[in-house]
This record gives sequence, C-alpha cells and structure tokens, in this order.
Amino acid sequence: MYELLAREGLAKRGRLHTVHGVVETPVFMNVGTAAAIKGAVSTEDLQDIKTQVELSNTYHLHVRPGDQVVKKLGGLHKFMVWDKPILTDSGGFQVFSLAGLRKIKEEGVYFQSHIDGRKIFMGPEESMKIQSNLASTIAMAFDECPSSVASKEYIGESVDRTTRWLERCRTEMARLNAQEDTINRKQMLFGINQGGIYEDIRIEHAKRIADMDMDGYAVGGLAVGESHEEMYRVLEAVVPHLPLEKPTYLMGVGTPANILEAVERGVDFFDCVYPSRNGRHAHVYTNHGKMNLLNARFELDERPIEEGCGCPACRKYSRAYLRHLFKAKEMLGMRLAVLHNLYFYNTMMEEIRTAIEAGNFAEYKRNKLVGMTEQEV
Amino acid sequence: MYELLAREGLAKRGRLHTVHGVVETPVFMNVGTAAAIKGAVSTEDLQDIKTQVELSNTYHLHVRPGDQVVKKLGGLHKFMVWDKPILTDSGGFQVFSLAGLRKIKEEGVYFQSHIDGRKIFMGPEESMKIQSNLASTIAMAFDECPSSVASKEYIGESVDRTTRWLERCRTEMARLNAQEDTINRKQMLFGINQGGIYEDIRIEHAKRIADMDMDGYAVGGLAVGESHEEMYRVLEAVVPHLPLEKPTYLMGVGTPANILEAVERGVDFFDCVYPSRNGRHAHVYTNHGKMNLLNARFELDERPIEEGCGCPACRKYSRAYLRHLFKAKEMLGMRLAVLHNLYFYNTMMEEIRTAIEAGNFAEYKRNKLVGMTEQEV
Repeated sequence: MYELLAREGLAKRGRLHTVHGVVETPVFMNVGTAAAIKGAVSTEDLQDIKTQVELSNTYHLHVRPGDQVVKKLGGLHKFMVWDKPILTDSGGFQVFSLAGLRKIKEEGVYFQSHIDGRKIFMGPEESMKIQSNLASTIAMAFDECPSSVASKEYIGESVDRTTRWLERCRTEMARLNAQEDTINRKQMLFGINQGGIYEDIRIEHAKRIADMDMDGYAVGGLAVGESHEEMYRVLEAVVPHLPLEKPTYLMGVGTPANILEAVERGVDFFDCVYPSRNGRHAHVYTNHGKMNLLNARFELDERPIEEGCGCPACRKYSRAYLRHLFKAKEMLGMRLAVLHNLYFYNTMMEEIRTAIEAGNFAEYKRNKLVGMTEQEV
Repeated sequence: MYELLAREGLAKRGRLHTVHGVVETPVFMNVGTAAAIKGAVSTEDLQDIKTQVELSNTYHLHVRPGDQVVKKLGGLHKFMVWDKPILTDSGGFQVFSLAGLRKIKEEGVYFQSHIDGRKIFMGPEESMKIQSNLASTIAMAFDECPSSVASKEYIGESVDRTTRWLERCRTEMARLNAQEDTINRKQMLFGINQGGIYEDIRIEHAKRIADMDMDGYAVGGLAVGESHEEMYRVLEAVVPHLPLEKPTYLMGVGTPANILEAVERGVDFFDCVYPSRNGRHAHVYTNHGKMNLLNARFELDERPIEEGCGCPACRKYSRAYLRHLFKAKEMLGMRLAVLHNLYFYNTMMEEIRTAIEAGNFAEYKRNKLVGMTEQEV
C-alpha cells in the first residue's frame, strides 16, 4: 500500500495507495475540523489548491452532526462531496484538550461535551466505531495525549495504556471492516507513538507498535508546548525506530520551517491549523517571509500577495484589495487568505517531493528557509 | 444607450449599453456594499451566478478605503477585478440612515462618520466627485431620502431641493467627465424621483426630472417602511411619468414578489440586500417557498436546496450538509447560501426577460407567485 519511491538522507518520498486514490508524500493534509475548512472554503475549492488529503475531526463530528447522521448520509466523502482521501483523528486529542471534566480509566475516557456538557464515554472501540461510521480513508488509533508537564512516571504508564488501546483499536477495526454494512471496508488504521519528550519511552514504544504492522505510524504528543529543538530531538530519536516502509506522520505540525526540518528527519505526513488560522487573521505566507495584510503599507499595493503564485487570491486580487477586505471585516478577505495559505503549503510539499526525487532536498530546504526568514516583502 | 426591446403591458424588456458592456433588463443588481458581496463571495464567483451589475456604496467606500485610494488603484473595476457594469449609489441613503448627527443645508449635508465620528460634508458635487473617483459605470444623483414619517410640507420642500441638487449633480458630472484624469469619462448619471407616498408630489417631480434627459431614472424613498400596497400604488402613479426610453430603477427592492409586481408596473432595474442577508441567516429561496436551513427536518435530507438549480451550492451540496455547516457556524454555510440566493434572483430575472419577450410574463408571474407561496419543500 505504501511505496518508498526515493530517499535523500532520512527524507522520504513516498506514495500511499488508498481506496480513495493515491497520496504523494511528503504531504500536508488540509484541516477541515467539522467537515469544512474554516474560512468559507469548500471541497470544490480544495480541488483548485492542490489538496491531496482532507483531515476531519472525530470528536467534533461525533458531537455534531453525529457520526450516525454522517453514516446515514453515506459517510464523510458523500457528506462533504470529496472523493479523495480523508484522514480522521481519533478524538483523543480533543478529549484531552477541549472536553470538560474527564476521568481516564483502562476502558477509556469519561468526559463532558464542550458543546452541551452532556456526558460522553470514548474508548478505543467507540473511537473506531465512530471513525468507521464516518468512513474516512485513514482512521487514527485512540491514544492518550498526556499533558506536556506530566511526570515521567505518569507518561510511562500512559504509554503502556496507549499500547493496550492500540491492540483494542486494531481488533475492533478488523471487526468493523468485516461487517457488511460498513461503508469503507478498506479503512486504514495508523498507530500513534507517544512518550512526551522522553526519548527512552518514545523509542521503546515505537519498537512495540512497529511490530504491530499498522498501515502507518504517527508521532503524537509533540507541538504541545515543548521547544522546536526538543521536537526535532525527539524526531531524531524515534523516527528511525518506526517502519521505513510505512507512512510517518507528525501530528499537528506545523510552520513551514517545522515541516522542512521534520521531512529531513524522515516524516512524510503532516497536518496543522496554522495556514487556515493565520489566514483568517490576515497573516499570509510567502517565500520572502510572512505578511500581515492589515499593514498600512499595503494600502496602495497593487501586487498580489506573492508574484507568480497561482492561488485563487494571487491570480486576481491585489494586496490593496485584500487589506481593504480585512479592514472592512468582509469575510471574503479571510477566504482568499486561507486559500492562499493552503496553496502555499500544498505547493511547498510539491516542491519538497520534487527536490527529494532530484536529490537536492538539502539545498532546497536551505534556500527556502533563507527566503522565508527575509521578512521583507 | 437604452433600447426598449419588448413590452408586455407596462413591463419593459430592455438593453442598456455601457462602457463596461451590455445590461439585459429587467436586471437585479447584486449588492457589494464595501466592494465585496457579503458572505465571502468574490467577483470571480459573480461570473458563475449570472451577475450582470455589481452595486457598491459611495458612502461606505468614501469612508473606507477612501475614494482617493480607489482612484489611485485605477477605480473600482480594477480594485475589485470586475469588468462588467458597476452602479454606485450616491451616498445619500446612508447619510440619512447610518450617519450620526446631521444637518441638511442647501449646499448639502454635514454629518458624522459612523466609523470614527469624524465630520464629513457631502453635497451634490462631493458625491459626484467621489463616484467619479470610484469610476463606476453608473452614478446616482445625490438626493435627500426623507423619513417615511416626514410631513407632506417637509417632503415638498425636500423634493424641490433634490431637484436643485440634481441640476448641480448633472453640471458637476459633465465637468468631471470632461477632465483628462477622470478614469471613466463615460460615466452615466441616473436621477432619483422622491416624494414619499404622495402621488401628486411624486408625479410633479417625475415630470420635472424627466425633462432633464438623464441616463436613467430611479424611484427612491420606497421600501422604507410603507406597506407593499402603498409602494405598488406609488409605482402605478409615477412610473408612467418617467421616460419609457430610459432605464427605470426601483431602489432597494425587494422580495421576489415585489420585483414581479414592480416589473409589471414598468420597472426594470432592482437592487436589494435580501438575498445576501437572508443567505447569511440560513434563509434560502426556492420556487416552492423560502426555507430555513437550520430546520431539523433537513438533518438527513440529501437533496440540494432546489432540484435542478445550477448554483454552486445545489450543484454539489445537500441540505443536510448545509444545515450542518450553519449549526457548526462554519462560514462556508453562509457562502453557499448567499451564492444560491443570488443565483435564484439572477435566474428569476432571466426568466422574466424571456417571459416578456415571449409575451407570457403575466402567466409566468402568476405561476411563480403561486409556487413561491407554497411554503412546503
């Protein structure tokens, strides 16, 4: 299912075959939490900005509209009208970051909905069932994402439980994929490595889950408050212990620089809310640094955000117009900035793939980083 | 410049030739107050939903980004990237409805900006200058839109002043159109009939401005609180006194039923915020009544808003998905609903034109009204 097409150092250029088509890696998955990209971006728009994989949120969709509703409507692909791959996270991260009072037990987590406070239980089987109802291309295992300030002892116990949960996820996914009325009976399951910033726990855990022959492996629990250097150190330690012949996914990361550094360390799947969130706040990416479109110096600037960019914003509209839209609080400003940012990320991934194939990723990365830190546009 | 192509009763099927292309009438102009259609709709989208004329707001653009800024950027067409006709209102209506403390004098109106409270003066010459800077296709005369509860005596005096202002607008527009550095030296000017609900004042005023050979004539000061029946009565009285061989524009109107009734009474230009405002509140139009997409009965409804509709929402997305987007407060819901509503209005105008040409407008109108009041979808 996963082909390793080329390498440069640890950097992987891969191809994942799925029931919803091929994913060329390294890839940045575009985040549509509640089955829509924030900023008034539709799945039709995603066709236009080189999106390969849409990522939706198990917890959010379980709460609203409800995974049973999505199943009755034929699954997420039909609901959103998107025929390419969709990855759903397990809900674990939201349970630990969004939900109110919660209690973690061996069987799973008891918590309150952040919408209406109602009590919800979610364990490995529930998460698999929800994701099976959503019928995503790739499901993520249900894991615990411990607090970044948890003790090493706690993290050790938590990781052991996450391993037991992964076994249960795998068993339940196999059961669900064997059922007649399952929408996507070829749903893939990725395991998640945890262990905080403790390399020894991370490595031991990576070895254990590597033996379980999952469809892919994620590194979770990073980008939760630790420094970039700590994150890179953990990746350097753990990625070599994850299977080379499987996708390697760094969850929730990150800035363009983070992605370049992680690709160099062997990661080839990414997702992050930065491009859409920054776009909604008038912050846009260019190859010459980030730009705040609200800045007064763009008042009469007739240039696009970035010369030569083929995104729906740059193809037609000037910085002056975009600045006006943000000043006038017109939603169109958000939409165009989000489209630009996602296009920027997706294009960077395309460039990364080309560079690894050509064996000049190291040079590409160096130049890209120099350009992006110019901060002068 | 204006051809009367066909008539059925008083209903006009016309064609206005402008420097930015042809407008087939009856036409509904799509309102983009601050140089953008609210609901994250771009001028690129307008190409897709049969928009013929975009309408922007002189007062809003004068305050932000400033008409001087728009002029430096090459005018509204270049700013918004829209090469078809644009109509700008005169700012008069906003001065009277939005602005803070104001004082009306013979020379014009002193008032405070609704954004920052700064003092602004606007009279006929200022309005023409601003609209010339914006370089719209059609400028509207600067008029007073008196309160709907003003006395008949006040309205009489106000209308006299509006006539004197129209003379000044015409003189100033001629002067501006003769200047070398004017962006659109073929800018048209429409006069505006006022007179509240007093037929005698309206008719006398219509006769006076009809003699002034403007490029078109609007009926202003309606849809400001009077009943629909009063509005239709005023139209029946005044439209026959406006030149048949010029565009007839009913400002700020209205519902689909209002438009059908006004077309029957000889109006062929319209504008209104209803379709975009209603769309942003999940209210969408169909040929079988209006629909509130938040309604629980759409939870599992896989049909588009309207079967057979060719709008960007109906081409791809279900009522169930749209309902979810509104429930989840995803901006995409607003965008799709606004696109649908504008497409619905623009398509109705197309049907109206075809019906008048075929001589079956009366029948078309009757059937359309029956369908739209079904309220059952």
